[in-house]
Amino acid sequence: MEQQVAELAYALDTFYFLVAGALVMWMAAGFTMLEAGLVRSKSTAEILTKNIALYSIASVMYMVVGYNIMYSDGLSSIIPGIAFFISGDNTAVDVTAAFTGDMSYDAAEERPYYSDRADFFFQVVFVATAMSIISGAVAERMKLWAFLAFAVVLTGFIYPIQGFWSWGGGFLDELGYVDYAGSGIVHFTGAVAALAGVLLLGARKGKYGPNGEINAIPGAALPLATLGVLILWLGWFGFNGGSELKVSDVDSANNVAAVFANTNLAAAGGVIAALITTRLLFGKADLTMALNGAIAGLVAITADPLSPSPLLAAIIGGVGGVIVVFSIVGLDKLKIDDPVGAISAHGTAGIWGVMAVLLSNADATVLGQVSGLLAIFVFVFVTSLIVWFILKMVMGIRLAEEDEYLGADVAECGLEAYPEFVKKA
Amino acid sequence: MEQQVAELAYALDTFYFLVAGALVMWMAAGFTMLEAGLVRSKSTAEILTKNIALYSIASVMYMVVGYNIMYSDGLSSIIPGIAFFISGDNTAVDVTAAFTGDMSYDAAEERPYYSDRADFFFQVVFVATAMSIISGAVAERMKLWAFLAFAVVLTGFIYPIQGFWSWGGGFLDELGYVDYAGSGIVHFTGAVAALAGVLLLGARKGKYGPNGEINAIPGAALPLATLGVLILWLGWFGFNGGSELKVSDVDSANNVAAVFANTNLAAAGGVIAALITTRLLFGKADLTMALNGAIAGLVAITADPLSPSPLLAAIIGGVGGVIVVFSIVGLDKLKIDDPVGAISAHGTAGIWGVMAVLLSNADATVLGQVSGLLAIFVFVFVTSLIVWFILKMVMGIRLAEEDEYLGADVAECGLEAYPEFVKKA
Amino acid sequence: MEQQVAELAYALDTFYFLVAGALVMWMAAGFTMLEAGLVRSKSTAEILTKNIALYSIASVMYMVVGYNIMYSDGLSSIIPGIAFFISGDNTAVDVTAAFTGDMSYDAAEERPYYSDRADFFFQVVFVATAMSIISGAVAERMKLWAFLAFAVVLTGFIYPIQGFWSWGGGFLDELGYVDYAGSGIVHFTGAVAALAGVLLLGARKGKYGPNGEINAIPGAALPLATLGVLILWLGWFGFNGGSELKVSDVDSANNVAAVFANTNLAAAGGVIAALITTRLLFGKADLTMALNGAIAGLVAITADPLSPSPLLAAIIGGVGGVIVVFSIVGLDKLKIDDPVGAISAHGTAGIWGVMAVLLSNADATVLGQVSGLLAIFVFVFVTSLIVWFILKMVMGIRLAEEDEYLGADVAECGLEAYPEFVKKA
Repeated sequence: MEQQVAELAYALDTFYFLVAGALVMWMAAGFTMLEAGLVRSKSTAEILTKNIALYSIASVMYMVVGYNIMYSDGLSSIIPGIAFFISGDNTAVDVTAAFTGDMSYDAAEERPYYSDRADFFFQVVFVATAMSIISGAVAERMKLWAFLAFAVVLTGFIYPIQGFWSWGGGFLDELGYVDYAGSGIVHFTGAVAALAGVLLLGARKGKYGPNGEINAIPGAALPLATLGVLILWLGWFGFNGGSELKVSDVDSANNVAAVFANTNLAAAGGVIAALITTRLLFGKADLTMALNGAIAGLVAITADPLSPSPLLAAIIGGVGGVIVVFSIVGLDKLKIDDPVGAISAHGTAGIWGVMAVLLSNADATVLGQVSGLLAIFVFVFVTSLIVWFILKMVMGIRLAEEDEYLGADVAECGLEAYPEFVKKA
Repeated sequence: MEQQVAELAYALDTFYFLVAGALVMWMAAGFTMLEAGLVRSKSTAEILTKNIALYSIASVMYMVVGYNIMYSDGLSSIIPGIAFFISGDNTAVDVTAAFTGDMSYDAAEERPYYSDRADFFFQVVFVATAMSIISGAVAERMKLWAFLAFAVVLTGFIYPIQGFWSWGGGFLDELGYVDYAGSGIVHFTGAVAALAGVLLLGARKGKYGPNGEINAIPGAALPLATLGVLILWLGWFGFNGGSELKVSDVDSANNVAAVFANTNLAAAGGVIAALITTRLLFGKADLTMALNGAIAGLVAITADPLSPSPLLAAIIGGVGGVIVVFSIVGLDKLKIDDPVGAISAHGTAGIWGVMAVLLSNADATVLGQVSGLLAIFVFVFVTSLIVWFILKMVMGIRLAEEDEYLGADVAECGLEAYPEFVKKA
Repeated sequence: MEQQVAELAYALDTFYFLVAGALVMWMAAGFTMLEAGLVRSKSTAEILTKNIALYSIASVMYMVVGYNIMYSDGLSSIIPGIAFFISGDNTAVDVTAAFTGDMSYDAAEERPYYSDRADFFFQVVFVATAMSIISGAVAERMKLWAFLAFAVVLTGFIYPIQGFWSWGGGFLDELGYVDYAGSGIVHFTGAVAALAGVLLLGARKGKYGPNGEINAIPGAALPLATLGVLILWLGWFGFNGGSELKVSDVDSANNVAAVFANTNLAAAGGVIAALITTRLLFGKADLTMALNGAIAGLVAITADPLSPSPLLAAIIGGVGGVIVVFSIVGLDKLKIDDPVGAISAHGTAGIWGVMAVLLSNADATVLGQVSGLLAIFVFVFVTSLIVWFILKMVMGIRLAEEDEYLGADVAECGLEAYPEFVKKA
């Protein structure tokens, strides 16, 4: 019977992991709706295509190579190893046998308490999240196939290498970098890769006028954007809640519960703070800022959704909601054109989130947190810039001017998102 | 090992609670889409803003004060106590230590079998549900910030006080009022508060003509409304299914399973009955009535989704689906303007649900059920009316006439929900 | 304590089943959004009505009769028995007592490890899935009430009878037909019933020109269609992941985890393959084909999401994604008008899925798999054709020509899906 109890715990943890993973997969729909709602109608079909394709590419690339880099044994604490995860032997608890090549990572020893395949599933949806952040920032002007080529590299290599440094046991882990569910490892990473792309790509035509004007380009369908944020909010319970990695004892269960409550409160704090901020700054309740406030609150709590009290969680999220408003306004002043606010919501708020760990978690150090942010920034920015640049040379990354004017939908997809509806000129 | 088995049960119940809570949180998206689909396009961005903001306010207010009222020890069986839930100590099973002040409620004794923080999370999404009902009924003409001010009071005080009477161990509980998941406590409460607001607010301009005409004001995007109802349907599995509060033994598991099956059948019965009713009354299959039929069926079964047989569950839901059609038609004759039918679907069907408990649950009494409805109605109606009235005096609750004509979006949010699409004059 | 451990396993399996069932219920929203996005705006309210109504009818009919046919004791291995499932006794583990009539199926013996009511819930959402497939294929031209009448027969009788053959212990089970979660039993069945309807119904006006032209009729709202596919993708984790029927030991948990990972990879493979195929064939990245690629990948893996390695799962899905493109193009050449591509995505890909089991599952035989497909095709096609034909004679199945021209919404529902938006002539 002792065996049966152990198996039950294994089963519960595996099931918990799968449910959490399914919720994170659902975040792909959240990003898709958010971005589809915030771009113009002429770019909507293309952003839909990008989103469903990037999720698919992330799934396959991470299976073929990314997972095996991120959780490899490592040639050093900086350079990961590599192995291949294509066996069909799903039933073994000891999954070491599922790997071939130079991979000596002993999963059975380190993660004996849930199915390795569940771990793979949970990790694969995380890398897709990082990639989803990017599509919004480069929307409406980047070529579809160049973007997908970048997705291959980011999900197969860039994300897993920096992920290895923290979650795979590399040097950031050794340095004491604390990032519970990935404010830095996932969200900041996505934002930095996006920033590199945006800098090479330039702003959308007409976004910034010749005399310094900043022209608002409103999103075409705010109900979809709002739905997207609510999907992300739900999915984040899996993102953060699953990152405890275990639920089957009282301590773990209490932790997971606290993470759910805090995640919810941080998002709520972000919405309220962003709404009040825009009311004070602009005199109106800006819905798109409230939506980004929710995301910023969620990103901010992600680096440590466990240690803060509920009240502190709401405050951390609220600060995120204020920061994101100023960050969006500030990036526009720098003529960095981010149609959906992704760099601010995931990048600026991600920095805040990583540093906010220091408020309640005694294990975190300023050195560790700053090291994490710096390492991620330098590595992801430089490698992304190189990849974007190569793509620019080889195939071009920006739509032709007339294609951008007509819209990415017609140019890249040959169809329209709303073909029957009359649009304003 | 005995300890390990107990911990496993604790973990399973906690996880079950969190999954149920996440599903109920998802209902926020359901209400948002339902309301966004059933209002006119010129009020859509504002209803989106209201929904995401009310959920956020509910989360924060219930954390700061509401939860501590509803589950307080109580000064008497009518007047709850108060305490503050802001500790960061998530790991203790005995959560008494998480409270300060005069709160002597011993959670460890009464709810030892799952994480208290999971209970908080589950309860917080319930209060948001009650508040979500209101936004639909007052849509298109109420000021945004007045509405949000009301949300502060309802979620922080009105809802928790009446909730204390039943679920917190107050006098309705003592009177034998039976309301499994809250047909009365949540849905009727929301509808009554909405009714008070609508009576003070008046109908939308043009809804009722000078000669008694009732003018249909169709919703702008029925796919969103349908999506909203399907989201609510899914979320209701958490709403009702989680209200068993326990799943870790055979009896509880069977109960939860019966609740899932019955909840689904009641919604199905509501749709079919509403469709047939509208076919007979109007000659057409009215989609919006079918949608409200689903909600009415769900509300009707919520007071007792466990006792009825599957067939009876479908019938209870079906009666709800008939009632909601007549209620919507009837309220329009009384010139009570409810753009989305929320008062009928949650209020009228809620009354039916509370009384329908008598059909299959021997523990329920006519006295207990009627007492519950009366107590909730009187308390919530009077307090809501007072709050709405104060808000009317202090800041006004109704949009200026020209703002209502132009639309709440432009007036309150400064942006449009569908800025690119040409609308009929 | 042994009892408590057994109860915990029972509880975990029941809860797992309910979560999976809720995810499958969510697929109803997926089909609804997919179809609402791919039809024209003038048929959108009607397709929404059909979808929510068919789900409701399926739930009630399967409760009243279908479930009791499918899991009856059987008069023979071909002819099922019948019983009625309307008891309110939810608490018994041995549910035999819940049935009356000639049903001697001993649930307690065969399925002692989870709640019978959870099994019912899980099965009921499956039959709704089969019916959802049909609404898309006959969209924009079939009468609402004729369609709903067909739903009564398919969900109450046709689906359960063929389901009995495999999952109820009938002759296909004896023949060794392997279909883990229903590529054939659910998806191919739906597609075959749809095909019979489409053949009797004919194409939409204007779809095929007099000189052999095939006119594209684009869907009105691609964001909704994309959302629908992402909902289906999420729901499919319940569809396939729940079909292991058990999670409470290490082997089962590993299997469920493998099913999740493989299901995700098959969908991803389908998207990538369909995108590349359309890029090569048409020069553009066709979003609607990518969406159907995802579905085809999911359908293809459904017959065996457990045996393949992750890589093989992606390949099986990818082949599905290629097949669906050619199938959609091919059916158009045959003038079989399927507005959403359902017959190809569920039928053609379903055939591929059933046969692909042979690639990795040693238990499957060519004879068994072909027998399954043939038996399903002949039975479902013939009975469906008869039912459609009777409906055609009795009440007519096709909208009047002027109704089709004006749109099913006005003709059948008396309302419009997007009443405020100006449409192109």
